[in-house]
Amino acid sequence: MIKNDLYLKALRGETVERPPVWMMRQAGRFLPEFRAMRDRYDFFTRCRRPELASEITLMPIRRFPLDAAILFSDILVVPQAMGLDFEMREGVGPWLENPVSNMADVEKVEVPNVDDTLGYVFDAIELTLQKLDNEIPLIGFAGSPWTILCYCVEGKGSKNFDVAKTFCFTQPEAAHLLLQKITDTTIAYLKRKVEKGVSAVQVFDSWGGMLSPEDYQEFSWQYIQQIVDALKPLTHVVVFGKGCWFALDEMSKSGASALGVDWTVSPENARKLAGNEITLQGNFDPSRLHSTPETIRKMVDDMIRRFGKDRYIANLGHGILPNIPVENAEAFIRAVVDWKE
Amino acid sequence: MIKNDLYLKALRGETVERPPVWMMRQAGRFLPEFRAMRDRYDFFTRCRRPELASEITLMPIRRFPLDAAILFSDILVVPQAMGLDFEMREGVGPWLENPVSNMADVEKVEVPNVDDTLGYVFDAIELTLQKLDNEIPLIGFAGSPWTILCYCVEGKGSKNFDVAKTFCFTQPEAAHLLLQKITDTTIAYLKRKVEKGVSAVQVFDSWGGMLSPEDYQEFSWQYIQQIVDALKPLTHVVVFGKGCWFALDEMSKSGASALGVDWTVSPENARKLAGNEITLQGNFDPSRLHSTPETIRKMVDDMIRRFGKDRYIANLGHGILPNIPVENAEAFIRAVVDWKE
Repeated sequence: MIKNDLYLKALRGETVERPPVWMMRQAGRFLPEFRAMRDRYDFFTRCRRPELASEITLMPIRRFPLDAAILFSDILVVPQAMGLDFEMREGVGPWLENPVSNMADVEKVEVPNVDDTLGYVFDAIELTLQKLDNEIPLIGFAGSPWTILCYCVEGKGSKNFDVAKTFCFTQPEAAHLLLQKITDTTIAYLKRKVEKGVSAVQVFDSWGGMLSPEDYQEFSWQYIQQIVDALKPLTHVVVFGKGCWFALDEMSKSGASALGVDWTVSPENARKLAGNEITLQGNFDPSRLHSTPETIRKMVDDMIRRFGKDRYIANLGHGILPNIPVENAEAFIRAVVDWKE
Repeated sequence: MIKNDLYLKALRGETVERPPVWMMRQAGRFLPEFRAMRDRYDFFTRCRRPELASEITLMPIRRFPLDAAILFSDILVVPQAMGLDFEMREGVGPWLENPVSNMADVEKVEVPNVDDTLGYVFDAIELTLQKLDNEIPLIGFAGSPWTILCYCVEGKGSKNFDVAKTFCFTQPEAAHLLLQKITDTTIAYLKRKVEKGVSAVQVFDSWGGMLSPEDYQEFSWQYIQQIVDALKPLTHVVVFGKGCWFALDEMSKSGASALGVDWTVSPENARKLAGNEITLQGNFDPSRLHSTPETIRKMVDDMIRRFGKDRYIANLGHGILPNIPVENAEAFIRAVVDWKE
């Protein structure tokens, strides 16, 4: 049994004394010990070596009273396992030398045996769970099929992912075949994570907000729904769609245990759009962690009061920025932990 | 009197047979004649020479049956007039060598006499109006103070404008002084455009959607409201806030004649959020112009039926992309012009 199960109570919609807290990218560049590790090993080496990935996962846990850990990894390990050789380039970010551009490319993409290709992730989960010693839950994650497609087709980050969108709009059959292959791989990948012992899985749809509501339905949501349907009997599924305010109503009926929202969605709008039955997670503007600790504390108190302490997980509205002072991140976390009605 | 006043009728909320149509960045890189001009003169030369700016403004009008022209210019001519030496760098976009970073920098920023610094824009309006010969209305525009601040502080384009946001959150006094200076300059600039004969002005808040609703209120909307208040007695004001769905209710009560919406806002949500009294403009996904002309025609018909033909201006949800085939842009425009109930 997990000693601090506040995060799981919030996912189950139980009454709590205060909401649980974790931060997207909490095991990230804002931590000096993470930067020191980065200077010694490249990005995907850190993902692939279980002793490194588990150590990085624990870094924020050793510093802060967080209510959940999230396995250090990357959404792009899935397309890597499917035969797409993503690199992480300094100053550029994700990079794929030969992006997917037509049906012939899609046909070459594999739906791999996840144990053969992603065993290092499952080993990292095992090692991390040993180190966590049942203190707090461990979250597993994956990118949404649409978000993964964005990188596979664009080959790198983008402001608006127009190349990926154009691929979908001009070659919908190829797009749907690729999305289904990613979905099938992701389901097998997340199922195995649950078998290894993660307490919940979060699906990150970072680029769903680039699509119109109709195109979101066609190219993103229907595949996330497949993932929720497949995982729901086994664990809690959390769906975070950045910019996807327009889909919160449908998402709330999906069977997901919680929905992540970004900071453009006020707590009142989040509840209006998603209803009162589902747990919400978010949504502090990551840039707002540049405010003073005093302002951060006030804003966190306001955020909790407006979302309400139950059916709520305090978090950022997207990943923490690399240049946030550690004491500001700590002020955010402690403001939740010390919160009183 | 303007012969085709469909755009003005829509702004006044009058009953029309079909909605008017124009496209954001219709005088842009998707036109071969624009690219030919670009090879001969650099970007700001094209803005500064009235004979070039007016010729570029007319380019899409000569090709397509558009219901409004928009003066070829750039939102950054305003900060240029305020003493900030923006360049347009090939493959980079806007570039400011020494971005604004503190109060001392802000204090140096001027609120200029617009006739002395932006006379070339007013001359371009005069020349364009002669060439348009009262066939269709001419729209003038400016960036929102927040969007201009983003470029002044960031010094270039950005995915999330974190540097600009951090400036506002850590140095709010400097931010508000800069925003007020931009607002004062913009009001004088737009008033003079109206005196020169534009039929409406549009304020582009391209990066308002990067802010939380509270921060949007503080750092963007209150300054746009000042612009609306100052211009409303003189002309129609249209406000386009990309990603600003959460502010549509407040915007609808501002005195603006119309609100632009992006493609993440369904027509039904746009009406729900902005009410039935205000004209709406948008919101075809620019990437969707990569679909076939046949698909484009169907989607346009659907868009008009869902927004309704009255109190509606057909447009894209953001600027047209440089790689859109001319015949697809034409299919979009003709689908509106040929639309029948």
